[in-house]
Amino acid sequence: MTNPTAAMLVIGDEILSGRTRDSNMHHLARELTAHGIRLAEARMVADEHAGIIDALNDLRGRFDHVFTSGGIGPTHDDITADAVAAAFGVPIDIRADARALLEAHYQRTGLELNAARLRMARIPNGASLIDNPVSAAPGFTLGNVHVLAGVPAIFQAMLSSVLPSLTGGDALLSQAVDVHRGEGEIAGPLGELAARYPALGFGSYPWIRDGAHGTQIVVRGTDGALLDAAMVELMTLLDKR
Amino acid sequence: MTNPTAAMLVIGDEILSGRTRDSNMHHLARELTAHGIRLAEARMVADEHAGIIDALNDLRGRFDHVFTSGGIGPTHDDITADAVAAAFGVPIDIRADARALLEAHYQRTGLELNAARLRMARIPNGASLIDNPVSAAPGFTLGNVHVLAGVPAIFQAMLSSVLPSLTGGDALLSQAVDVHRGEGEIAGPLGELAARYPALGFGSYPWIRDGAHGTQIVVRGTDGALLDAAMVELMTLLDKR
Repeated sequence: MTNPTAAMLVIGDEILSGRTRDSNMHHLARELTAHGIRLAEARMVADEHAGIIDALNDLRGRFDHVFTSGGIGPTHDDITADAVAAAFGVPIDIRADARALLEAHYQRTGLELNAARLRMARIPNGASLIDNPVSAAPGFTLGNVHVLAGVPAIFQAMLSSVLPSLTGGDALLSQAVDVHRGEGEIAGPLGELAARYPALGFGSYPWIRDGAHGTQIVVRGTDGALLDAAMVELMTLLDKR
Repeated sequence: MTNPTAAMLVIGDEILSGRTRDSNMHHLARELTAHGIRLAEARMVADEHAGIIDALNDLRGRFDHVFTSGGIGPTHDDITADAVAAAFGVPIDIRADARALLEAHYQRTGLELNAARLRMARIPNGASLIDNPVSAAPGFTLGNVHVLAGVPAIFQAMLSSVLPSLTGGDALLSQAVDVHRGEGEIAGPLGELAARYPALGFGSYPWIRDGAHGTQIVVRGTDGALLDAAMVELMTLLDKR
């Protein structure tokens, strides 16, 4: 596949302890797929400086884009911006443009822009800001790393302002069919079909519903005509058995 | 923390394309926490042989346990067992004990144990089997890697048979309090409190509900008395403001 690739880095103890269920990864996966960018890996790490840096440096070297979520708020456990600066080896400090955004927001809401909130204006040198229409504190893009908030409503708003600026590939198309047969019954012919269409991806996902077993077969690719042809063959293969 | 550590490796294109929402990671996180094992990292990778091997070798070297989910069914895209064998550098073939489990199951259900289904009896040398009470095809443990199915009902059943055999640490306790104040308002004193209790973890999670903003504060640790003391201080701190 020639589509650009991306990785996600979810940052936060609360995900790994099981207290919070991450939903940003699933949202990102769907949005990237629609934009023609292939999400190739997702990683969830704790709020630990060194661990975040290691993961960032691994992922940004291997993929065209890295999206992070979480850790850019005002509290002591919000250490993402500093970790990104350290990963890139650039200085980080309160930046005038980010500070101005916070000042305007807190003036509007009548709240105090105290030292903790001012931490949210700490932006690594060379980064460009990502708009936060919900609570003003910006995300940022540095190199190929896009740093977004963890709160789902803000993550989604930030992503929708970043994504249109990124070059996507051909749309990643998929078609699916559900069959009331076990995977093991169709695995042989399905594998042969997959081997004859190397440009397409064939997935097979067993399900159990109300005690009944079945399989969802998903075919993925960027060539719509090829996908149609494979689906016709697949349906014939399933009817014959 | 002296608790044993674990990582999760979720294997499957369907998670990264956004077609399926993973729920096994959240279940594992909760179960491990209750058992005193700290989930330190989770990773989601595609159905690609080399990528799975690299992730396995990285994670099994860094953590006490690795749990995988997905890719042990009968179809061409089920490549986890072979990748685990390759990661450990051991041979893999159909094994008599696993084959016997499948034979008994398919005899019971009246279905054919065909070549595709027989692939599910491929077990790396030296692995011990993990019981699958739902559909017979076993998982396995090799070294510190526990290979479980992706279907949630089977993943959960397999986990509940593996987990009691693993040495846990002190229970990972947590207490939480919700406040109707923004993070930025409590961040300063919360950070000071966290600095005075280095043996505990303090998390701060902003929420938005029906337009109202608030923060959930979570304190984690293994020393119940220390946790209680910190919570008393936290409540005092919150009331005073």
